[in-house]
Amino acid sequence: MNKFKSLFTSNPNQVITADLLTSAGIIILQLAGIFILSKLLFKFINYLIKNIFEEKKGYDKQTKQRNKTLKTILKSALRYLFYFVVVTTSLQVLGIPTASILAGAGVFGLAVGFGAQSLVEDIITGFFILFENQFGVGDYIKTSGVEGFVTEVGLRTTRIKNFDGDLHIIPNGNIKQVTNLTADLRRVTVDAAIEYEQDIGQAITVLEDLCQEVKLEYSEIISEGPKVLGVQELAASSVNIRVIAMVEAEEAWQLERVMKQKIKERFDEESIGIPYNHLTLVEK
Amino acid sequence: MNKFKSLFTSNPNQVITADLLTSAGIIILQLAGIFILSKLLFKFINYLIKNIFEEKKGYDKQTKQRNKTLKTILKSALRYLFYFVVVTTSLQVLGIPTASILAGAGVFGLAVGFGAQSLVEDIITGFFILFENQFGVGDYIKTSGVEGFVTEVGLRTTRIKNFDGDLHIIPNGNIKQVTNLTADLRRVTVDAAIEYEQDIGQAITVLEDLCQEVKLEYSEIISEGPKVLGVQELAASSVNIRVIAMVEAEEAWQLERVMKQKIKERFDEESIGIPYNHLTLVEK
Amino acid sequence: MNKFKSLFTSNPNQVITADLLTSAGIIILQLAGIFILSKLLFKFINYLIKNIFEEKKGYDKQTKQRNKTLKTILKSALRYLFYFVVVTTSLQVLGIPTASILAGAGVFGLAVGFGAQSLVEDIITGFFILFENQFGVGDYIKTSGVEGFVTEVGLRTTRIKNFDGDLHIIPNGNIKQVTNLTADLRRVTVDAAIEYEQDIGQAITVLEDLCQEVKLEYSEIISEGPKVLGVQELAASSVNIRVIAMVEAEEAWQLERVMKQKIKERFDEESIGIPYNHLTLVEK
Amino acid sequence: MNKFKSLFTSNPNQVITADLLTSAGIIILQLAGIFILSKLLFKFINYLIKNIFEEKKGYDKQTKQRNKTLKTILKSALRYLFYFVVVTTSLQVLGIPTASILAGAGVFGLAVGFGAQSLVEDIITGFFILFENQFGVGDYIKTSGVEGFVTEVGLRTTRIKNFDGDLHIIPNGNIKQVTNLTADLRRVTVDAAIEYEQDIGQAITVLEDLCQEVKLEYSEIISEGPKVLGVQELAASSVNIRVIAMVEAEEAWQLERVMKQKIKERFDEESIGIPYNHLTLVEK
Amino acid sequence: MNKFKSLFTSNPNQVITADLLTSAGIIILQLAGIFILSKLLFKFINYLIKNIFEEKKGYDKQTKQRNKTLKTILKSALRYLFYFVVVTTSLQVLGIPTASILAGAGVFGLAVGFGAQSLVEDIITGFFILFENQFGVGDYIKTSGVEGFVTEVGLRTTRIKNFDGDLHIIPNGNIKQVTNLTADLRRVTVDAAIEYEQDIGQAITVLEDLCQEVKLEYSEIISEGPKVLGVQELAASSVNIRVIAMVEAEEAWQLERVMKQKIKERFDEESIGIPYNHLTLVEK
Amino acid sequence: MNKFKSLFTSNPNQVITADLLTSAGIIILQLAGIFILSKLLFKFINYLIKNIFEEKKGYDKQTKQRNKTLKTILKSALRYLFYFVVVTTSLQVLGIPTASILAGAGVFGLAVGFGAQSLVEDIITGFFILFENQFGVGDYIKTSGVEGFVTEVGLRTTRIKNFDGDLHIIPNGNIKQVTNLTADLRRVTVDAAIEYEQDIGQAITVLEDLCQEVKLEYSEIISEGPKVLGVQELAASSVNIRVIAMVEAEEAWQLERVMKQKIKERFDEESIGIPYNHLTLVEK
Amino acid sequence: MNKFKSLFTSNPNQVITADLLTSAGIIILQLAGIFILSKLLFKFINYLIKNIFEEKKGYDKQTKQRNKTLKTILKSALRYLFYFVVVTTSLQVLGIPTASILAGAGVFGLAVGFGAQSLVEDIITGFFILFENQFGVGDYIKTSGVEGFVTEVGLRTTRIKNFDGDLHIIPNGNIKQVTNLTADLRRVTVDAAIEYEQDIGQAITVLEDLCQEVKLEYSEIISEGPKVLGVQELAASSVNIRVIAMVEAEEAWQLERVMKQKIKERFDEESIGIPYNHLTLVEK
Repeated sequence: MNKFKSLFTSNPNQVITADLLTSAGIIILQLAGIFILSKLLFKFINYLIKNIFEEKKGYDKQTKQRNKTLKTILKSALRYLFYFVVVTTSLQVLGIPTASILAGAGVFGLAVGFGAQSLVEDIITGFFILFENQFGVGDYIKTSGVEGFVTEVGLRTTRIKNFDGDLHIIPNGNIKQVTNLTADLRRVTVDAAIEYEQDIGQAITVLEDLCQEVKLEYSEIISEGPKVLGVQELAASSVNIRVIAMVEAEEAWQLERVMKQKIKERFDEESIGIPYNHLTLVEK
Repeated sequence: MNKFKSLFTSNPNQVITADLLTSAGIIILQLAGIFILSKLLFKFINYLIKNIFEEKKGYDKQTKQRNKTLKTILKSALRYLFYFVVVTTSLQVLGIPTASILAGAGVFGLAVGFGAQSLVEDIITGFFILFENQFGVGDYIKTSGVEGFVTEVGLRTTRIKNFDGDLHIIPNGNIKQVTNLTADLRRVTVDAAIEYEQDIGQAITVLEDLCQEVKLEYSEIISEGPKVLGVQELAASSVNIRVIAMVEAEEAWQLERVMKQKIKERFDEESIGIPYNHLTLVEK
Repeated sequence: MNKFKSLFTSNPNQVITADLLTSAGIIILQLAGIFILSKLLFKFINYLIKNIFEEKKGYDKQTKQRNKTLKTILKSALRYLFYFVVVTTSLQVLGIPTASILAGAGVFGLAVGFGAQSLVEDIITGFFILFENQFGVGDYIKTSGVEGFVTEVGLRTTRIKNFDGDLHIIPNGNIKQVTNLTADLRRVTVDAAIEYEQDIGQAITVLEDLCQEVKLEYSEIISEGPKVLGVQELAASSVNIRVIAMVEAEEAWQLERVMKQKIKERFDEESIGIPYNHLTLVEK
Repeated sequence: MNKFKSLFTSNPNQVITADLLTSAGIIILQLAGIFILSKLLFKFINYLIKNIFEEKKGYDKQTKQRNKTLKTILKSALRYLFYFVVVTTSLQVLGIPTASILAGAGVFGLAVGFGAQSLVEDIITGFFILFENQFGVGDYIKTSGVEGFVTEVGLRTTRIKNFDGDLHIIPNGNIKQVTNLTADLRRVTVDAAIEYEQDIGQAITVLEDLCQEVKLEYSEIISEGPKVLGVQELAASSVNIRVIAMVEAEEAWQLERVMKQKIKERFDEESIGIPYNHLTLVEK
Repeated sequence: MNKFKSLFTSNPNQVITADLLTSAGIIILQLAGIFILSKLLFKFINYLIKNIFEEKKGYDKQTKQRNKTLKTILKSALRYLFYFVVVTTSLQVLGIPTASILAGAGVFGLAVGFGAQSLVEDIITGFFILFENQFGVGDYIKTSGVEGFVTEVGLRTTRIKNFDGDLHIIPNGNIKQVTNLTADLRRVTVDAAIEYEQDIGQAITVLEDLCQEVKLEYSEIISEGPKVLGVQELAASSVNIRVIAMVEAEEAWQLERVMKQKIKERFDEESIGIPYNHLTLVEK
Repeated sequence: MNKFKSLFTSNPNQVITADLLTSAGIIILQLAGIFILSKLLFKFINYLIKNIFEEKKGYDKQTKQRNKTLKTILKSALRYLFYFVVVTTSLQVLGIPTASILAGAGVFGLAVGFGAQSLVEDIITGFFILFENQFGVGDYIKTSGVEGFVTEVGLRTTRIKNFDGDLHIIPNGNIKQVTNLTADLRRVTVDAAIEYEQDIGQAITVLEDLCQEVKLEYSEIISEGPKVLGVQELAASSVNIRVIAMVEAEEAWQLERVMKQKIKERFDEESIGIPYNHLTLVEK
Repeated sequence: MNKFKSLFTSNPNQVITADLLTSAGIIILQLAGIFILSKLLFKFINYLIKNIFEEKKGYDKQTKQRNKTLKTILKSALRYLFYFVVVTTSLQVLGIPTASILAGAGVFGLAVGFGAQSLVEDIITGFFILFENQFGVGDYIKTSGVEGFVTEVGLRTTRIKNFDGDLHIIPNGNIKQVTNLTADLRRVTVDAAIEYEQDIGQAITVLEDLCQEVKLEYSEIISEGPKVLGVQELAASSVNIRVIAMVEAEEAWQLERVMKQKIKERFDEESIGIPYNHLTLVEK
């Protein structure tokens, strides 16, 4: 571990100088080797960074600007890292102990490593979002307590914009679980409430009739139904009858509005009341 | 640890050159060995990767595409890893200290290792889901705050689609606890509410009669019951009588709707009112 | 640490070849030893695995199939582990530094170790559930937010089925705290609500009379009581009188229903009204 | 670090065989020493285990059975541990590197160590519960979201049974914070609600009179009071007057019931109404 | 690192026995040194333990008993620790590798260390509670979800008893944040509700008059006020006027009761009604 | 590792003094080297610190003051760190073991490193907020449970001020997820409630007419709409018709107020009532 | 690593005694060096501690007392730490292995280090609170679930007192996020509720008139407004009109009370009713 030590410990009966020179020569050779090798590695990694950032050509101006900044930071960080490696390695070759320097750098490195943990997790999750095609730009998703249309899927963050115009910026590491609402057809569910006094059979007939009408009118967006499922609930003040339909995901919100309006209007025509909350009064 | 050192420390009375050459020869031999060994290992692991990805033949196109991508990434990662191992090992053979290089790589490795932790957990949990046969494609499950039919069980994620068409994509590590609703028969539970003024005995008789009727009509899907359990609750405004039945899991939702409608209709026939909320007014 | 080094550093005035041969012989001996030892250990561990999986004979077909799969995976994992140990140990014997290889494997091992943490916790908790006999198959328990009858207690997961037929699969590590509802007798608690205008003394007499009747009728399942505890609450619209009984755990739900029906019927006979919510109106 | 190496590196001009034999002899001596020492340690630890489990004589049958199982497991685990230590130590003595074996065992050990963390925490907390005498068998405590009478305080778990017969089994590590309800006297608190129209002074006089009566009747369980504190709240529909008493913890629940009944009856006698919710109606 | 090795590697041309003896002598000397040193250290630490536990003389019987138990446990733990250190150190001196033994002990030590983490945190927090004088025995505090009077502040736990007699035992590590209610004067806040039809000015005059009266009557406990702050809220059915006063912390609860009663009585005298909830009815 | 040792172990037949002197000379040379090198490094890092803090010239007075403080602290910390490294390295050169010193410093370093973890995370997140341009000063954002206008984006904290004047100071590490409300146009959503008796068609016509009017009047801030979407909900007491418009983010709050007032006024003109909650009374 | 070993391994043909003496001399020299150095370091650190605690002269008596206690504890801890370092270093110099001692101390150190983690975090956060001037004594802040006036900002804890006199003591590490309510002007917001039947225009005129009046009367504390924003909400039973004003933070609470009273009084004058909750009754 220590060159100088070796010089003296092993040459009892010789002229010291010769060995000293040879040994010093070896050390100089090693130091030279370290400088040349690290120079080469430095160039190679710079070349790699350049390559990584150049092959992503499809990006827009803002992304290019960002990549440029990132490249500069990475290069700068690498430069200081190489200085550190070269200096400590040279010290070791010269026989000066570097344990305390390395220990200090290690604690610093650990602190940074722990702090960067969530960054690494963001990138790994981001990779799997893209790789497993969990959702794409334009999908309407729910995740991490927010929902909206995906506007950008990056390696570190995903951007979602909701109907109100709120732009949610979510680090991918927060996307533990995703619900994609536009992955397939969506079910439109309307629960029509009728009075307890109303004949259920008649109400179902009226709704089935209405379903046929809606089916014809909106046939281009409806894949299945609408149909009457039956009595969903004997609620506190009403009997709820469920009507469902499978439609293109994007049209679900609008069809729901249409069906609600149509049910209300048809019930008015057929004198089927939609009940308010009821309360039975007992006079004492 | 250092070849050059050895050269000089141990050959006091000899011609240095001879030893130097021999020692240099050994080093060259070792370096050659390292290159050959790592080349072989590299090939072997490449062969393993190829094997692992080829034996899963049943998968569809998308999966094949994904596996191809994953294979490329793994190979690329391995290549850089091998470069690193070969270079640092060679440096050690040449007597250049590599402690600071290894320490830096270690911190980087730890950061990646910590970040990849949830990935490892996903895969281990995924393995146990498949291995313990917790649920399969088509089962209706509740887990991690969502519910729906399982559409895909992967090693890293599980996909669940609910009645509304929402596609939930859940990393397996999030599936701490699973509730399988279609593992066995399901119980249909309907609480029939009657007025406090109503005779309980009569209501139970009516319900038992209805149960017999439903049993006959739906015998092909009902395994047990329906039967009247008794007075479940003396609620604020009603006496609730519970009726239960064991049916095929898939039919439970529909039978519940049928029974609610039948109870309402039979109660209407028998003039048993389903009570609204009651309030006793005290005039001051 | 390095055999080749030794060869040259220590034999200044001798014929090098002889020593080289001896030293090479030693290395060959050591390598042979490594191969033989690891072969033996490999066989021994395979034998252990076989033993562990064979002595559990009481299991059914599914468990046998599972054990077979697990055995294959374990054997395969062990095989690769042994290859790794043999190769790195041989490299060390040959004087090639393995620090960087070991460091890489260490990071990989740590990632797997961290990811497997919850697996280890599941197994340790599972061991204590069985060892401390916290609950057994057939018990009705509450744990980790769900409740139901235990259908299987495994080393890694516990399965619970509730009245509705939901099958909860819970990793044992999630079972932080267990409530066993069928460990002992259960208390049936019914709060009979009477009007504020009602005489409390009379109501208690009626209930005590009813308790005697229930005691006789259900003496085979009731261990203690039923008895009247007294006025539990002066509630917003009623005076609540508590009646309790200690019964066999399995019969508690049914007896509760019976007692509620009986109280309602007896109160009807005795013209003791069960009050609705009251509201005092103040006209302005 | 390597015996064979030493053999050849240090005896240039001698007959090799003699040294080889001596050196081999030393190795054999060391190996023998290792086997004897580990055998002795093994016996000593077995003896310790036996001692630890035997000196706890007061336990019942179930505990004995459990201790026996635990003893067998501990012995078995120790046996394999000793095999591992003896084999790796012998390998080191024979000059075969064991770094990769130890690293693998270390990762395994860490995984187990992390998984066993909560076990260690359970035991440490359990020790302090017993040591600090936080609660004993028979105490009524609240902890970790449940409450009931303590039925068993173990080193790893505590068992609590509530009034309903639910048996809560809580790992001690979950007992972060304990509330002991039977550590001392308990306060019985009854808030008597009177009409806003009622004279507060008169109501307080009636309650104070009642307190005297209760004090005399239940003097053997009441330590202090009951006494009237005053107007606790000008509530939405009533003026609430608080009455408190300090009693033996076990009697608190029953005395509360008694006082509620007595207040109701006395208020009836004195024509002090307990008000229902009030609502002022404004006709438009 | 290995004495026996040294024996043979360094004495090529000598009589082996002499060196062997000398070397063995050194080893015996070192072993003796280890035994003597550890004996001394053992005694020193025992002496320290004794000292630490003796200088706390003010404690009562229970604490003394506890200290005695703790002393015995500590001594016993130390004894086994010393055995371990002496044995492993001796093994190292004898040239037997102890890496695998130390690794095993290290994993065990880590598990215990992690498990004891919360114990260490308890003690550190406990130290700061005492050191910063956050609260003392007799203070009424809120912390960790409970509140009550502090009855004991220990180094590991704090005990709090509330008005109802519940004894909360809280590990200091749970006391993240403390609210001390008796650190200073307390504000008594009473919101007097008047009808919307009532003249606010008149009500304020009445309240101010009342405040003067209370100020005189309770001057010994009131530091400031009571005074009328003004209209705190235009609530759903009332106008709320706030009255505040600064009093001795211990008297705050009682003064609040007094002021509520006085406001009610004075409002009755002045015919200022305290309104019930109002509802405007719209007949259809 | 130890110079003195080397002196004596390797020079059996020589004059000790000469070697001692040479060896001592080497040590002195190394110590000198350490002092010179660390002095240079110290100066270089001081130069770096100076540079880093000087090139940020745009900052205001307060920032300058803060940078000056930070510079002083960093310099002071570095000074003590260098003292530590120089002393321990010198001790190692002198052959005095420093393992126990380094271990102590390591534990201290780890404690600081763990404690500084959240600081590192703050800075990394802060960098990405700036780098990815997630939001800027003046944006109205929601994050970490608060919302308001961004007033400052720092590397460690972000400051947000809400409409009420509350200044939220949030460490960047808390900003896991951001919602930017002023990133783009905002949608104004008003749900107009009409009576169930009201004709839906007429109400929609009135609202569409109003929309045209608002469009003309506020054309400079409205990008799209307002338009009537249809029946959003058949609510408990009303039919809700949704009207939306896309506007400049800053104007959204004001336009919403305007539209609510206009809808109320227009409905008054057209005698379309906005319904109160309805309740159907059933007299017993 | 071992002096005694060196003695015997390197001096085959000499008189042992001479070397032994020299070598022993070196050891004695090193031991002496260790003692002197550690003594010096000990004194230096004591001097540092003294300096750190002396330069904070502004503190009051209590702080001085506390600093004195802290100084004593720190000195005592240092003394034992030095004893440990000196003893283990001396053992190493004497050739006795200290690996197992250091490992034990390391585990102890880690446990303390982990436990002290939150202490370090408290101090780092405390530094940034002071350094970034997040809030000062006298500010009214919300943080960590409590709010009140800051009474003390320490390096480890912050003390906040609310209006009721509660003293919150919060470790700085809990202060993740701060809301400073007195950093700038505050907005007073009053929502005036009017009947649906009321003309909005008239109500706004009345409120604007009132705003002018308040502006004049309280001009010294109001910076902006009060002004009428418009219809904030078409609520269930009222139309809410928002009035806002920017005032000195300290005056906000009082001005809000004043404005509420004035609005009520002015509405009374103008016969604008503040509505109660409305309910439309539908008789069946």
